Amino acid sequence: MLTAVIMAGGKGERFWPKSRTKIPKQFLGLTGEDTMIQATVKRVNKLIPYEHIYIITGKDYAKLAAEQIPQIPFENIIVEPEGRNTAPCIGLAAIHIEEADPEALMVVLPADHLIGDEEKFVKLLESAADLAEDGENLVTLGVKPERPETGYGYIRLADKKGDYKGNPAYAVKAFREKPNFETAQYYLESGEYLWNSGMFIWKVSTIRKKIREFIPDLDLGLDVIKNAIGSDNYQEVLRKEYAAFESTSIDYSIMEKASSIYVFPGDFGWDDVGSWTSLERLFPTDKEGNVVRGRAIGVDTRNCIIEASGKLIATVGLEDVIVIDTDDVIMICPKDKAQQVKELLQKLKEEGLRDYL
Amino acid sequence: MLTAVIMAGGKGERFWPKSRTKIPKQFLGLTGEDTMIQATVKRVNKLIPYEHIYIITGKDYAKLAAEQIPQIPFENIIVEPEGRNTAPCIGLAAIHIEEADPEALMVVLPADHLIGDEEKFVKLLESAADLAEDGENLVTLGVKPERPETGYGYIRLADKKGDYKGNPAYAVKAFREKPNFETAQYYLESGEYLWNSGMFIWKVSTIRKKIREFIPDLDLGLDVIKNAIGSDNYQEVLRKEYAAFESTSIDYSIMEKASSIYVFPGDFGWDDVGSWTSLERLFPTDKEGNVVRGRAIGVDTRNCIIEASGKLIATVGLEDVIVIDTDDVIMICPKDKAQQVKELLQKLKEEGLRDYL
Repeated sequence: MLTAVIMAGGKGERFWPKSRTKIPKQFLGLTGEDTMIQATVKRVNKLIPYEHIYIITGKDYAKLAAEQIPQIPFENIIVEPEGRNTAPCIGLAAIHIEEADPEALMVVLPADHLIGDEEKFVKLLESAADLAEDGENLVTLGVKPERPETGYGYIRLADKKGDYKGNPAYAVKAFREKPNFETAQYYLESGEYLWNSGMFIWKVSTIRKKIREFIPDLDLGLDVIKNAIGSDNYQEVLRKEYAAFESTSIDYSIMEKASSIYVFPGDFGWDDVGSWTSLERLFPTDKEGNVVRGRAIGVDTRNCIIEASGKLIATVGLEDVIVIDTDDVIMICPKDKAQQVKELLQKLKEEGLRDYL
Repeated sequence: MLTAVIMAGGKGERFWPKSRTKIPKQFLGLTGEDTMIQATVKRVNKLIPYEHIYIITGKDYAKLAAEQIPQIPFENIIVEPEGRNTAPCIGLAAIHIEEADPEALMVVLPADHLIGDEEKFVKLLESAADLAEDGENLVTLGVKPERPETGYGYIRLADKKGDYKGNPAYAVKAFREKPNFETAQYYLESGEYLWNSGMFIWKVSTIRKKIREFIPDLDLGLDVIKNAIGSDNYQEVLRKEYAAFESTSIDYSIMEKASSIYVFPGDFGWDDVGSWTSLERLFPTDKEGNVVRGRAIGVDTRNCIIEASGKLIATVGLEDVIVIDTDDVIMICPKDKAQQVKELLQKLKEEGLRDYL
């Protein structure tokens, strides 16, 4: 059985003020008519029927997920009591799928990425599933880098493992954290590195085995939770065990340490839509280099990202600035200060202005 | 008879987007509860009764003036068919007052200036009226400069003429256009220069005589208009004559050329509130140097002028930028580019977005 797990627990803070605590990025249509999670589910549904697609998200978002993706059975929406990074998240999804089929294949996908070439992507998933089928391999999709991007992690390729349903797989030599610009340039030029897309394919039994090996505490807790599935005290057990899990990523705790890790290099128009500056890659710019959505007018305005939501945004002498107007917030921030938006959210918390979070 | 003429024909473009074609700066309360023209009328009313106060404004604003200043007789609202700078404006006011009293004194005041010390100001007007009474003198109020301001014209003092009701008057040596910074610094340090406030005091008969001497075409036209006052074809005559008037300022065409020009140096908390950056002088700044009105939150935000009108304005890494939110426009402009807002208005015209003007 081939299943998909859509991870939809992110806060999308880097898309504030459009992405909000009440409705974060993955539930918004930042780039199209469908919300990001709708697009992700529709895409994976080309390969996997809705009843085998799972969504794992925070408790505040289960209702939102059910509303946006009514095609998916409600019981396939798995709720994390709190965010604990990707390892506990994937572990929790794994035990739920295990209940249905311990030998199921899991395609693990973030809910908030864009994929331009869906056909290539789906074919690559089929290849990855083929390689993962043997029950030992952890498979990931890597993206051929197009620029010296410092915002992504990288995967270093080793030897070719073979072709699987028409696509070549490679052994992984190493995972690399987000590099500085010089290193990113080297990665790009060397041809030996791929972007780490954060998408994984493995059997439930394989990932459970790896969790047992590399994160034994998580494995024990998952067993306790699994025993409570279907019982009245499931929520209580889940909450208690989850709170004790170490917050750790699957990349750091397993992928960087385990053997039998393979990657399929892909070229499927992937973008993580990580922050407002991503819009420059996704939308056409005007002749002054601005990405403008909604009604705006500028004099001497260059390389800005402007998103109007009703009011006219009028700018003079502005360069490399992000301007986002929403129903209740106007955010203005130079592109190179976009990371500091988190400080702004912290300040809003401190000042008791939680409605704006 | 002492009369006042409040000039209220300006467009206030430098306060766009709050100041708009439909309701320009002088009809807004940019700095207080009263609109600027209301404050100006109330102030001059300390010396001059309402029935001797005249407002001269554009045809689109007569109704607004009547609504905002109901104390003034409706017939005291004089309408210019179009803007022709201050010389025709003052000439038109003069012939209307001449009808009531050819020997009346006229205090000519812009509608959109702030005056902090009204008592000092009113006393200075009394002194100026005293000096203007002789029928030869053109009197103006100068302001002791507080900083090397490059946005104002300057008046160079010559010899002292004498004291009038307790205030000293000086002959004027020269009027100077807006200087560059170095020149402004020299003006400030020399102690020989005053800011040109654009406020004048003279007899109707005196200014008419000077117009006859220095702008004879205007004088002839004013006579034609004057003859039509009270007749059915007044509007038609006014429109026709006005269209032929050269657009010229009273400063350039008369004050810089005539003799018997005197100035009273004053220190009455004057501000022309010429542009958004004026707000820094008029309102307290926070510890990062920002003037904030309405709800705003900033990280690493310094020396900005932020005016919120409902939505939260959230800024990160912004310095020396003006952000103005109104009902239908959000304007963002570095302080040193504020002059280019006029280009923005031009662009709005070209693109047919006149509703935003």
